[in-house]
Amino acid sequence: MKKIPYLIKNVDLAPAGRQRTAWAAREMPVVGSLRKNYSRTKPFQGLRISCCLHITSETANLVIALKEAGAEVALAASNPLSTQDEVAAHLVRDHSISVFGLKGENERTYYTGIRALIERQPHLLVDDGADLIATVHRYKSLAGQILGATEETTTGVIRLTNLAQKKLLLFPVVAVNNADTKHLFDNRYGTGQSTVDGLLRATNILLAGKVAVICGYGWCGRGIAMRLKGMGARVIVTEVNPLRALEAVMDGYAVMPVKAAATVADLFITATGNTTVLSWETIRLMKDGAILANAGHFNVEIDLATLSKKALQKTRVRPYLDEYLLPGKRRVFVLGEGRLVNLACAEGHPAAVMDMSFANQFLSLKFLKENHPLSARVYPVPPEIDQAVATLKLKSMGVQVDRLSHIQKEYLHSWHLGT
Amino acid sequence: MKKIPYLIKNVDLAPAGRQRTAWAAREMPVVGSLRKNYSRTKPFQGLRISCCLHITSETANLVIALKEAGAEVALAASNPLSTQDEVAAHLVRDHSISVFGLKGENERTYYTGIRALIERQPHLLVDDGADLIATVHRYKSLAGQILGATEETTTGVIRLTNLAQKKLLLFPVVAVNNADTKHLFDNRYGTGQSTVDGLLRATNILLAGKVAVICGYGWCGRGIAMRLKGMGARVIVTEVNPLRALEAVMDGYAVMPVKAAATVADLFITATGNTTVLSWETIRLMKDGAILANAGHFNVEIDLATLSKKALQKTRVRPYLDEYLLPGKRRVFVLGEGRLVNLACAEGHPAAVMDMSFANQFLSLKFLKENHPLSARVYPVPPEIDQAVATLKLKSMGVQVDRLSHIQKEYLHSWHLGT
Amino acid sequence: MKKIPYLIKNVDLAPAGRQRTAWAAREMPVVGSLRKNYSRTKPFQGLRISCCLHITSETANLVIALKEAGAEVALAASNPLSTQDEVAAHLVRDHSISVFGLKGENERTYYTGIRALIERQPHLLVDDGADLIATVHRYKSLAGQILGATEETTTGVIRLTNLAQKKLLLFPVVAVNNADTKHLFDNRYGTGQSTVDGLLRATNILLAGKVAVICGYGWCGRGIAMRLKGMGARVIVTEVNPLRALEAVMDGYAVMPVKAAATVADLFITATGNTTVLSWETIRLMKDGAILANAGHFNVEIDLATLSKKALQKTRVRPYLDEYLLPGKRRVFVLGEGRLVNLACAEGHPAAVMDMSFANQFLSLKFLKENHPLSARVYPVPPEIDQAVATLKLKSMGVQVDRLSHIQKEYLHSWHLGT
Amino acid sequence: MKKIPYLIKNVDLAPAGRQRTAWAAREMPVVGSLRKNYSRTKPFQGLRISCCLHITSETANLVIALKEAGAEVALAASNPLSTQDEVAAHLVRDHSISVFGLKGENERTYYTGIRALIERQPHLLVDDGADLIATVHRYKSLAGQILGATEETTTGVIRLTNLAQKKLLLFPVVAVNNADTKHLFDNRYGTGQSTVDGLLRATNILLAGKVAVICGYGWCGRGIAMRLKGMGARVIVTEVNPLRALEAVMDGYAVMPVKAAATVADLFITATGNTTVLSWETIRLMKDGAILANAGHFNVEIDLATLSKKALQKTRVRPYLDEYLLPGKRRVFVLGEGRLVNLACAEGHPAAVMDMSFANQFLSLKFLKENHPLSARVYPVPPEIDQAVATLKLKSMGVQVDRLSHIQKEYLHSWHLGT
Repeated sequence: MKKIPYLIKNVDLAPAGRQRTAWAAREMPVVGSLRKNYSRTKPFQGLRISCCLHITSETANLVIALKEAGAEVALAASNPLSTQDEVAAHLVRDHSISVFGLKGENERTYYTGIRALIERQPHLLVDDGADLIATVHRYKSLAGQILGATEETTTGVIRLTNLAQKKLLLFPVVAVNNADTKHLFDNRYGTGQSTVDGLLRATNILLAGKVAVICGYGWCGRGIAMRLKGMGARVIVTEVNPLRALEAVMDGYAVMPVKAAATVADLFITATGNTTVLSWETIRLMKDGAILANAGHFNVEIDLATLSKKALQKTRVRPYLDEYLLPGKRRVFVLGEGRLVNLACAEGHPAAVMDMSFANQFLSLKFLKENHPLSARVYPVPPEIDQAVATLKLKSMGVQVDRLSHIQKEYLHSWHLGT
Repeated sequence: MKKIPYLIKNVDLAPAGRQRTAWAAREMPVVGSLRKNYSRTKPFQGLRISCCLHITSETANLVIALKEAGAEVALAASNPLSTQDEVAAHLVRDHSISVFGLKGENERTYYTGIRALIERQPHLLVDDGADLIATVHRYKSLAGQILGATEETTTGVIRLTNLAQKKLLLFPVVAVNNADTKHLFDNRYGTGQSTVDGLLRATNILLAGKVAVICGYGWCGRGIAMRLKGMGARVIVTEVNPLRALEAVMDGYAVMPVKAAATVADLFITATGNTTVLSWETIRLMKDGAILANAGHFNVEIDLATLSKKALQKTRVRPYLDEYLLPGKRRVFVLGEGRLVNLACAEGHPAAVMDMSFANQFLSLKFLKENHPLSARVYPVPPEIDQAVATLKLKSMGVQVDRLSHIQKEYLHSWHLGT
Repeated sequence: MKKIPYLIKNVDLAPAGRQRTAWAAREMPVVGSLRKNYSRTKPFQGLRISCCLHITSETANLVIALKEAGAEVALAASNPLSTQDEVAAHLVRDHSISVFGLKGENERTYYTGIRALIERQPHLLVDDGADLIATVHRYKSLAGQILGATEETTTGVIRLTNLAQKKLLLFPVVAVNNADTKHLFDNRYGTGQSTVDGLLRATNILLAGKVAVICGYGWCGRGIAMRLKGMGARVIVTEVNPLRALEAVMDGYAVMPVKAAATVADLFITATGNTTVLSWETIRLMKDGAILANAGHFNVEIDLATLSKKALQKTRVRPYLDEYLLPGKRRVFVLGEGRLVNLACAEGHPAAVMDMSFANQFLSLKFLKENHPLSARVYPVPPEIDQAVATLKLKSMGVQVDRLSHIQKEYLHSWHLGT
Repeated sequence: MKKIPYLIKNVDLAPAGRQRTAWAAREMPVVGSLRKNYSRTKPFQGLRISCCLHITSETANLVIALKEAGAEVALAASNPLSTQDEVAAHLVRDHSISVFGLKGENERTYYTGIRALIERQPHLLVDDGADLIATVHRYKSLAGQILGATEETTTGVIRLTNLAQKKLLLFPVVAVNNADTKHLFDNRYGTGQSTVDGLLRATNILLAGKVAVICGYGWCGRGIAMRLKGMGARVIVTEVNPLRALEAVMDGYAVMPVKAAATVADLFITATGNTTVLSWETIRLMKDGAILANAGHFNVEIDLATLSKKALQKTRVRPYLDEYLLPGKRRVFVLGEGRLVNLACAEGHPAAVMDMSFANQFLSLKFLKENHPLSARVYPVPPEIDQAVATLKLKSMGVQVDRLSHIQKEYLHSWHLGT
């Protein structure tokens, strides 16, 4: 084993991590085919890639593929609670990849990882929430050699777009989140299922018959709403956007202000990308026993600071489940300390959706390198990449689609054909 | 009654049309509020507006609102089978609006109506399928005074975009279809429900347990799929676009080539905007008793010409339901002569969705007038219009949404806040 | 044409009735196979069968099958609004079957039909709601030759069970309604779909986003709830039975008392088999524009008598849709005069479910004849009949099931096998 | 701590068990109210109750309630894999209840527990799968003092009914499984959700887009089918009963023989109560990577014996997930060693449904005691108990239902009211 820097829990956990990574690989045929193809041509030869991602078995498959395609890869955790320690061990021991992250790390360790990613003078960045890119922008002198970056999340893309609008962005960024094969799948089907999974693992409550509030009806929110409805819950949606609110109504959900929902619901899940969505003013209206969880990227959607201050007592009643005793003897329960419930309480997105997100990551990095230099803007994923990922995925599932006939292609390009 | 030109079935049907229009008005509060507001300020005073739309009770509410806002309005049928004759009578007799169209009219009458719309030298056009605009482009000398046009359908927008790309477009067109409050609602919830309605009225078959093929997984297709699944059918989707195919798979539908679906399904519905989707090669593979319907704009999706040629016999077995006897004693049934099944066999989109589409029409016409001259391109509906329509609609339903707090607005515009 | 007594609208409508009956026959393969088999052996030779049923194309297929199996059949309407006049004509002219019923008949005509059924001294009765059987019990002298009867509905079975408990029942009755292949299918999938169909034909309102109250969560109620949810409505259930209420909660519906639901809903559908479910006290709480319909057997579930008395004005706004103007300028709309909405406003159950109900009718009549004399009780449909109907139906759909292996049969009969 | 016999993993796990039991108690308000009421009157004073149940936090709440109602209670595991060791510790240490069971115990330990339950000469038995009752029937001399027993599962009721039909049953048994508040809820909503939960914890695969086969469309099977559909899977049902097969078709599922399903599906779940449902002949037809799980009571539904013999290699790839390498390089994966997937891989039924099952258990034991002696038959749960449980449950959820008015009660008991 080559000597590399790393900061992980225990390198001896590698065998379990290897198995877990292999299990994920079964569900990641698209990344698998990229790995196979590009291990020969090695398009990333000579490049350092720094990844700030959730350290999971799915991420492992991406960074291994990048390494086999020629890159020197390092990986740091994008969230203090989401690291799978055995996977970190597997990457360090079996693949000699630098990893920084351990489940439950504190903030200092978290930023140590991010700093390590920057100090190695990477050529390409892969980010999840834009903490890595934002940090680079605080230490601009370190950004010189960077060809570009990719960003995985809605939250991160919003931050980077703000940065670009203020003309402060230093290098091109591909908004991987906005690829159709990413956000239409990962955010909807991935977050939808894994949020249910996190809820069940943390609480084991019966969802049928429960009243659940989903704050936010973006792609994540509608995925969660769809799945909770599919499990028999009665769903209420809260929104700030009238168009989305109207869609939620038409999809059969009740829509109301969050304070009105507070008094009638059993369960609250935030998925807005915004802050203080469940404020103390809202929490204090809730029924005894209400359960709160966050499925948005950052742990700011539930105002835990104020809740902690107001609570008489806080008790851990199950792993990742805290009871807050409020004045008046009412209790509320918070899952995973308000962090991403699907990562903190379950295993994050299923491998099958990460397969598409990460295939977009891989091909977007290749695009950044091949098209260097690009001006410092936020770019969409090129549509050819999106199509290629979808086509590879369908193929791996054995699903066939139709092709346009000659007459159909012609028809689509005409304007004079009518009634 | 002012003397105006018209070509309709029977002006004495007006009382029934008045009642039907009033019933639709109950479900059209947004158009109702525009009508009320602008009947005072009359923004269209002195303008001639020519509308080529389905002549239904919903359209009646739009054209009445335009007239009360000062316009001189004329209306011709955008489809030979969709006219509600009593509504036409109501518009002519009670509102002195020129109407051209009668249910079941032939092609000659159809184009007579379109010509009449053009010859009155309109300032604004409202189109549904782009037949009116396309005809104007054949007789360019008549286009001089035209300020602009709006287009209601996906199909029409595709035609007009082709025209614009070829630099042939003569005036600005607003793609009303592309407004979120139009295509997300009208195409999905409207077409979804009314296609089921058309199927039931035409056949009265039990949908539960039937295998239904939906060709095309655009907004219309997914609306139809969702509703047929909601009625207990087992849905197969066919697509040419891998991304949409993948979404259909993830939404729980079987996806396969149309020829594979042909041999196992009971029911086929096209919603692609393309031609020859159910070709003779596909139809000949179908089971005895298969039912075919089209929910796309034009009657070209089922290849009826070849089917008619190959069939040994054609019999009308119920209104809008024809049996074709094929060689080998198999029979297939075609609904509404392959025209839009929701309009031919039922009453078209429910008023509640047309309310939003037509509010976009009204405000887009106002936009064209107020921003004249605009260059000859295809324009999206301005987002303010979209938001305004959504907000008015929610208000009419008594649904309230949240507002962003100060701290939330600030958060959304920042880039340095992180983990 | 043999000279037979009849009372119908117009015998010249026969051709349309023939076509409609043939269309239903396509979806009734089980009755079709009984008709084919027993037209040879004629098990009902020499018997007079009197049927009080909805006069529809599905019923036509049953009575034709009974006639071809040797019976002399007469048919009277079981509901004044449900008769398909052209089907009545077809039975009279083409099959020489006595029919009494015309759409919209008054009460006198209705009982004329029932009396005619009794006066011909039938051997077997087929009833739908138990009006025929109840009338026979008022004129007991006419019951002497009756071998037995069958009853189609939940409502009728309740009435007959009450009669039997009071020791007043004069002959055996088979509760066809209680066959699994009847009530699990006809009540749930049949009523579910056809109630939606009736709603759409009568109102053409958009169901997505509407709040709908279903009164009663029996088989009919849950069928309607399931389909309205499938069309995008938000469903509230009202119940008197705690078990059913709990099931509705777990199925994801809101459950509340009808008066609480009255103030928030757009749409109300009764399916309880009871009276005065929507009382004036409830109706007066409803929102302006509320729509009321009944899917239960008798027109007693909505208290129309009191509503009519309290209303300032009643106007027919569409066919089968009446507006009642209430004090305070609010309006409510009632469908089909409070009669079975699926029959009054649409075409009743789809043929595919009536196929199973009527196959049970046919085989239960055969059972009554072959097992005569039976004591005067209410009998369930023999399980062999139920199984036979299910097996024939699956076969007609091309669906195959597994068979128990030898080892599996043995396992199911053992008690000593354990962990 | 009183000296009592027990055989558990580690008594020091008690604190974690106490917390887990308290968490379950939150969702078990009906058992909670029985515990509260009967801790005063102590109806079981002087009686020994032996329970063979899954040792979970929900069961803990039942046995504590029984003890507080005066009984001397002992508990043994009804399944070798389902024991929550910390809960066992809590019952022993904090409640002085004899417990026999540890997660992963072997068959000898399993029967040691059952023997211990018998040798203490119990007055009442509570069984889950009928292993305890069956063992008593092998050692008849020990059955003298037994007043009766209750049985929790479909499987157990089938065994006991066979025993009764052979006139071998020694004492009365209440079929708690058959209570509506048990099997309609526990089997459907409980098994439905917890099977999904087990699947996700064991595999973390994306369910959306997967083809899942459910063997058996009883209450468990339809619960699983409903939830998997709700998670986006495409469901195929296999059945031996034509009625259930027909219901599955009408509910929108594909139905086919298990061997036909074997070649197309990704996932197989058995829920039949029968043996060898997934035989080697079926397994050998499956696609590479197929996943097999059992949700039926006993581990006999998947023929693991033959599979193990035919497999070239068996590897544990994740906890409770074994890979079998088959000839031809195909692999199949088996969850939880073919034992109840919801108990082996997740936490079993959610407390909210066990609340109702166990309230029925409690009240049925009380019924057996109060009505002693009863003849040796299998009894249904008395309907008053069922109603009482439903009413208590609704009350705890804050759900209100309607009451029949005087006029409605009268109507339901009449027979002469008609059209």
